[in-house]
Amino acid sequence: MEQDQPKRTEISEYGEFGLIDHLTKDLKIHNSSTIKGVGDDAAVIDNDGFLTVVSTDMMVEGIHFDLMYFPLKHLGYKAIVSNLSDICAMNARPRQVTVSVAISNRFSVEAMDELYAGMKAACDAYQVDLVGGDTTSSNRGLIISVTAIGQGEKDKLVYRNGAKPGDLICITGDLGAAYLGLQLLEREKQLYLQNPDVKPDLEEQKHAVGRFLKPEARMDMIEILDKAQLVPTAMIDISDGLSSDLMHICKQSGVGAIVEETGVPIHSDTKLLALKFNLDPINCALNGGEDYELLFTIDEKDVEKIRLLPDIWIAGEITEKEEGLKLHTSGGKRHDLFAQGWKHF
Amino acid sequence: MEQDQPKRTEISEYGEFGLIDHLTKDLKIHNSSTIKGVGDDAAVIDNDGFLTVVSTDMMVEGIHFDLMYFPLKHLGYKAIVSNLSDICAMNARPRQVTVSVAISNRFSVEAMDELYAGMKAACDAYQVDLVGGDTTSSNRGLIISVTAIGQGEKDKLVYRNGAKPGDLICITGDLGAAYLGLQLLEREKQLYLQNPDVKPDLEEQKHAVGRFLKPEARMDMIEILDKAQLVPTAMIDISDGLSSDLMHICKQSGVGAIVEETGVPIHSDTKLLALKFNLDPINCALNGGEDYELLFTIDEKDVEKIRLLPDIWIAGEITEKEEGLKLHTSGGKRHDLFAQGWKHF
Repeated sequence: MEQDQPKRTEISEYGEFGLIDHLTKDLKIHNSSTIKGVGDDAAVIDNDGFLTVVSTDMMVEGIHFDLMYFPLKHLGYKAIVSNLSDICAMNARPRQVTVSVAISNRFSVEAMDELYAGMKAACDAYQVDLVGGDTTSSNRGLIISVTAIGQGEKDKLVYRNGAKPGDLICITGDLGAAYLGLQLLEREKQLYLQNPDVKPDLEEQKHAVGRFLKPEARMDMIEILDKAQLVPTAMIDISDGLSSDLMHICKQSGVGAIVEETGVPIHSDTKLLALKFNLDPINCALNGGEDYELLFTIDEKDVEKIRLLPDIWIAGEITEKEEGLKLHTSGGKRHDLFAQGWKHF
Repeated sequence: MEQDQPKRTEISEYGEFGLIDHLTKDLKIHNSSTIKGVGDDAAVIDNDGFLTVVSTDMMVEGIHFDLMYFPLKHLGYKAIVSNLSDICAMNARPRQVTVSVAISNRFSVEAMDELYAGMKAACDAYQVDLVGGDTTSSNRGLIISVTAIGQGEKDKLVYRNGAKPGDLICITGDLGAAYLGLQLLEREKQLYLQNPDVKPDLEEQKHAVGRFLKPEARMDMIEILDKAQLVPTAMIDISDGLSSDLMHICKQSGVGAIVEETGVPIHSDTKLLALKFNLDPINCALNGGEDYELLFTIDEKDVEKIRLLPDIWIAGEITEKEEGLKLHTSGGKRHDLFAQGWKHF
């Protein structure tokens, strides 16, 4: 008689967001100081009215970065910045980070110095303190885990669940460039592997490559919103792509959304580069991740305030849940938007 | 003409503690809220007098654990507990954790469920909230990074740097068992690999195996010390081994220490098991890690208080720096104590 095999469900059947929902569905909260647990850009902890915001992320060599074209100093910078971006997305100010690193013996002390130089540069640029961490070894590759800690004010923290029909959808900066920067570096890598004598010329593609290799957290936007006394109704940072991240806001707020293709900010260099790759620029903006711009919604009454602020674009409107997530194309059609999430598995 | 090669220093030349010191030596602190940065069991952040304590750790498959004998549920439990132990070592109370996990496609959803069941069991046992994290993929193996956040009181936090000559050295519980548990499981693994039909009998070795596979953080001791109104002068959790961890206290406090062999608590089962492995029990206690007991120093005037408390042992005395770290053996000799740290590289 054959023995019963235990059931095996592949992680790919769940996908990223499904897996997180599944693993965290039974969590109990024991402490009254825990205001917000799993499910936003960051957790929120109350210290007698003084709020601490905490976010954490892990980056794995070969999954999230390729050291063939990602300089270690830039990698250190990006590892910090991508976490600070989560704190900004709560409308909070990042203050501290902890860093855990696992490395194989392939890496030298000098390589670690480069990585840490990048992390320190990010800490200096954002006035954040590296307060702790762990350094350990791995059998293969480099793994970086960063936890960012920020400070928020009770009436100003912004969650993913506050959007309501009629709110305007706003996007900072421009989208799609980081994704195209990655495509470009991947192509140069393939060319180099075929012929190591070919020197890549990335000079003309500074914007896209720079957005991928040295992203910034939009801390400046948090300051600008604060000065304008404008508190968004919902906010998230665009790390997975506009579609995915807007889907998170819609799902948690119980609303729908319509995005105007003409309202999605795309840099002119990004448009040209997309065409070189035979890609539709709007698709790069909707589904390419790692731009670390902010996506937020504001009450209609704040529309005049937003028009005066630099580098913020109105890209659509929150609708009733039943209307779903739609894209209104420049050709006048309405398409469904699909959130892709990561597909590492 | 040959090109100059860039200098390459092997990480093994520095060792764990040397590498951390090297990487963090130039860190600047930007925020007045950062009270304690790198260099203790946890960082300390001030929120208007309300202190947040933060600690982080990374565990890598094949380096820190072997899934052949480490059940995933126990691993999840241990990953949480080892971080809570760092918070306890600050004389603070753990309140929240964040967890980042990277997994290869070797792992199923059911395997993740086991891991998270262990983490949830630890959160429930210690009344701690899992408030966030990241789930991503790895090319190979399982990597777990946990950040623990705790609450401390300004006058009661205990650092590594407060020990002074004349203070008594105290140890909770018993030492060396986790190390022997690991040796035992490693031996059983080798036997199994040679002959898969051999069933291991670990029943008689419950203590050692239990200490290795299901360690606990000594939160109970933090409560006991608090009730006794006893604030240690310095404290650390014993994760690397008594010698290493006492070395940290001595180095940061600028003192020496003498440990009495007869004062080091070793369980009778541990002694018997050590002898089976031809190991000296005191060496297992001094250099075996992962017991997660607390090592602390108290002012002489508190000695009567400590004598009344359960499961705490006086194991020596803090001396002047010049005297170094010594072991006073039961045979009456004095040996130098050497801190080993990890040697994963």
